[in-house]
Parts: sequence; structure tokens; C-alpha cells
Amino acid sequence: MIETRLTRAFGLDHPIVSAPMAIAGGGALAAAVTGAGGLGLIGGGYGDPEWLEKQFRAAGNAAVGCGFITWKLAEKPELLTETLARKPKALFLSFGDPVPFADEIRAAGVPLICQVQTLDHARRALEAGATAIVAQGGEAGGHGATRATMTLVPEVADLLAAQAPDVLLLAAGGIADGRGLAAALMLGADGVLVGTRLWASREALVADGFQSAAVRADGDATLRSSLPDIARKLDWPAPFTIRTLRNAFTDRWQDDPEGLRQADGGGYAEAIAAGDAEGAPAIVGEAAGLIRDIAPAGEIVTRIAADAEALLGGGWRR
Amino acid sequence: MIETRLTRAFGLDHPIVSAPMAIAGGGALAAAVTGAGGLGLIGGGYGDPEWLEKQFRAAGNAAVGCGFITWKLAEKPELLTETLARKPKALFLSFGDPVPFADEIRAAGVPLICQVQTLDHARRALEAGATAIVAQGGEAGGHGATRATMTLVPEVADLLAAQAPDVLLLAAGGIADGRGLAAALMLGADGVLVGTRLWASREALVADGFQSAAVRADGDATLRSSLPDIARKLDWPAPFTIRTLRNAFTDRWQDDPEGLRQADGGGYAEAIAAGDAEGAPAIVGEAAGLIRDIAPAGEIVTRIAADAEALLGGGWRR
Repeated sequence: MIETRLTRAFGLDHPIVSAPMAIAGGGALAAAVTGAGGLGLIGGGYGDPEWLEKQFRAAGNAAVGCGFITWKLAEKPELLTETLARKPKALFLSFGDPVPFADEIRAAGVPLICQVQTLDHARRALEAGATAIVAQGGEAGGHGATRATMTLVPEVADLLAAQAPDVLLLAAGGIADGRGLAAALMLGADGVLVGTRLWASREALVADGFQSAAVRADGDATLRSSLPDIARKLDWPAPFTIRTLRNAFTDRWQDDPEGLRQADGGGYAEAIAAGDAEGAPAIVGEAAGLIRDIAPAGEIVTRIAADAEALLGGGWRR
Repeated sequence: MIETRLTRAFGLDHPIVSAPMAIAGGGALAAAVTGAGGLGLIGGGYGDPEWLEKQFRAAGNAAVGCGFITWKLAEKPELLTETLARKPKALFLSFGDPVPFADEIRAAGVPLICQVQTLDHARRALEAGATAIVAQGGEAGGHGATRATMTLVPEVADLLAAQAPDVLLLAAGGIADGRGLAAALMLGADGVLVGTRLWASREALVADGFQSAAVRADGDATLRSSLPDIARKLDWPAPFTIRTLRNAFTDRWQDDPEGLRQADGGGYAEAIAAGDAEGAPAIVGEAAGLIRDIAPAGEIVTRIAADAEALLGGGWRR
């Protein structure tokens, strides 16, 4: 077992937290991650209260947390109040200013985890009194920015060492196996946030067609764009873009985002509903190239932890 | 001491190789890296034979290698013959097809190190019979592409494990301290290639103004562009761009590359000559945010190795 400040603070067996992926990260996935000894987070995403209630029900008695897209939560702040009433194990905010929500979260006695993509974001997370900061590199799937995990994590670690040594640090972006977890610990993280690898799990709310496309893909086959956001009419602020697989949809619209806007989504919603991985792209990161199966989430968590433990014990030597 | 397949193969004390940085990486830097127990590489760059002769002379008796920009070497292949006659400890190729040069390098008995930015590049390096592959993430300074070190390294490691288990693997991009080296070893690398951190050394052929700007900068302050190449009339092929600091020059031309072309370099050459870090940008990677001093190269190498060794021995625990 790998013991870190994160496992001690949250009472975990493994320093592994599931990314609260919008739409894909429901209650079953979060519960499976918590059940395996990690910390599962439900993806509160764009803030549909009925969906969220259903996912908390699906998680049952498992101690799970919940994540929100901060700029979207600002449009529906009552959702935070409702969620805190469910006593989540952690409240996770990314993509926007966490400070306006910090007092309410602190008053509820719920640990605040802030995901950041730049040093300025990290400084703002400290102002919000975050218990933990997730430094997310741009190799991550879904929304993010451009800094890389390899440099952002140690640089945020240095910031925390200087200004807030008790704040925990997690690495996110490109971490899909034991190698990534072991590397993140060397970079100064207390644990990792895993997205793409858990997106490719049995419990994720993702159609088979998308998961199969991701398993087939190598890590060169992704790109960052705003195309899915344009198709869904989601007004994401700068600097955030969304990493997906390249496919027929991104090839068609990459050089013509205005055309996609006028084409009313270009069939994106229909392709999502049909599980058509060419009509809409699988939302995964560069770590897709490290994924060769769709496995139960609990097995993924224990596999990552066991492989990292072996490496940390000297297994990196060849 | 960290022993790996790389240190055994090349007889090194530390699994650290200096990036053969065009212009900045001369003989004094390479010799200092070799002298400290790493492997120093002279940056053959754009192929000026007089400059190269001078740098080999500056390296003296130190066992150093030499690197070339492959697409540029293709324009002056005689430079390879001249360089191999100097019995370099390794011949390093990046940014282009290594296969046309492989037979001559092999016949000279010199190990070929191929730097790659994608999986296709890695497969081509295997066809060239490379002794070692450097997987370079886009967080690197100078020329590179977009894949991140965190995912490219383990994915290339998997490729090598399946197809060429005796080929060595180095990680490049974002590695500036012991944390980066230790992380790279966890990701499956046998060692690291260090650029930006050694660019910020006493021996690097870089004007003080640029080094000071890099020490002041955080890792958010870089970008990839083609602006320095446009200014220098260097016809770099896709997918390669060059990471530099943001500065007045990049702000001025970022949205107007055509204007820069017409402005005959926009004062770039003059700013380089003057050490003016606003008129031309420092050519560094995201690791600039991890650098706080300009130190002797040998000290940098031993510091990285010692810090990594401490981490690998359990120092990552907090």
C-alpha cells in the first residue's frame, strides 16, 4: 500500500481520485473507485439536479465526493447548497474562480479540492482555502489548458512548499497506470486524479462505440479544440479547450468552427446518442494510447496502485 | 549513483544527457556535462562547419557526442562524414527522417540516438536501427511538437518492449531537476535529455539578458510558435514549432506572422546580438519555471542526479 498525505487525510487505501467527469462520471463509477480504496467523485458537470440526484442514489452508501464546472455552477449556485446537504466526502471545483463558493463549502465542513491549469489558478485556489490542489496538465482528456503535467506539478509543489505547505497536491493529465502514479509522486504530488483511464471502465457512462475507438487509438490521435463545445452551444471561457480523439467530426470542422456553429451542431447530439465515434469524438486524453481494455473501475484502481507500488519498491530498475 | 541501462551502455556516472541545443550547446557545455559524469552533446544545429570545429576543439579531450537537425543535415550530408571522423561518443538526430543517415553512422561504429515527437517517429527510429530513442514532449524548449512527456514516454516504452526491447529510452521535455529525472525513470525511461536547465548554465552560449529573463519567468510564460523561424528565414517542416518565452517580440507578431515575414525579421537578429530579451525571446521550455539560478553545468548535472537518487531511495515520502 502506498501511504501519502492524501491517503492519511482522506482515509484511503490508494492515493487515487477519480476525475469528476461530466456525463461519464456517475455514481456507479465513483462508488466503485471508493470501494476499491480510492476516492470517487461524481461529475456534477453542467448542473442537472435530477441527474445528480440519480447519481448520488446510484452511489448508495459509498463515501463519494462531487465535482462541478465552476463557471457553470456560478449560474446555478443553489446546486452547491443541495450537494453539500448530501455530505459529500469532498467538493471539487475546476474551470473558474473558486473563491465565491469557498465560504459555503468551508462552513459545511467539506474539504475543497481545486483543480488548476496555471500558476495563477493555483494562487487563487490558495485564496479559496483549498484543502487540495489538482495540477492538471493539458495532455488530459476533456477540458483543460496547455501547461504539461511534467512541469506544472513540480512548479505548483514549489509554490505550496513556499506558501502553503499543508495543502495537498494531486497530479492530473496523462496518468493512466502505475507508471504515471509513481512518476507523479516523484514530481511532488501526494496522489493523482485519473480521468481517461476510468472513462474507459465498465462503470463509466460512455457508449461502447466511443470506448472502443479510444482503446484502438494511440496517444497521437487526440487534439484540443472547442468543437464539441460549439456543437453543444456551451460557452466555455478562455483558456479552456477540450481534448478529444481526432475523428471524422473534428476533421470536418477543425478549420471551419463558424460553419459548425451555423450547422446547429453538425449532428453531434445524434452521434452521441447513437454511440457513433465518427459523428462525435470520444472525449479522452493522450493517455488513450496507454489503454488496452475496458475494465471494472475497481480493478483499474487496484492495478494502478499495485504497479506503482512495485515501481516505487525498485521495480523501475532494468 | 543511479545505475541504468543507459549508464552501463555509455559508461556514465549519471543517466543524464545534454540536449544538443543549436547555438547554445557548444563544446564547453558538452565537456562540462561529460566531465560531471553525464553525456555531453554538442549542438551541430544548422550545420556551420567552422563553428562545429571550434566547438569540438573547445570540448578538448572530453568524450562528447554531437547532434544535428536532421532536415538541415540532409542539405549538407558531408557534415555527417566530417563529424563521424571526429569519433563522437554518439550521433544524435532529431526533426526529420534518420534512415538516410543510419548506414553511415553504423559503419562508423558510432551509437545513433534518435529524438522522436510521435509514435510514427519512434517507429522510423527503429527502422534506422537507433541505439537509443529520446521521447520528447512538447513542454520542451526550442523545437518540438505537441505530445506531452508524461504520456509519450510510457507509450514509446510499450512500443520498445514489444518490438525492440534492447533499444534504450530517454525522456525529454520539462525535465530540469531530480524530480523530473526520478519521474522519467518511473515512466520507463533509462535516462533523460536535459535542455532548458543546461541552457541556463554558465557554459551555455547564451547572452545574460536571455538567461536572466528565463530565471525570472514562471512556466506559464512560454508559448509554441514559428516566429523565430520566420524571423530567421528557417524553413522548418511540420509538425515542428519552437517554444520560447512570451515577450514583446512574440506579442507583437503572434497574430501577424505574415507581417513579420515582410518586416525582414523585425529586428530579431539585432536583438539576439544585443542580448535583448524583449526584441527576441529566450528559447526555453516550461521548465523555466523550475529554474532559479545560472549555475555551472557540472553542478547542475550532479545536483539533478543527487536529488533524483534521494527521491528514488524513498525521499518522495512526506
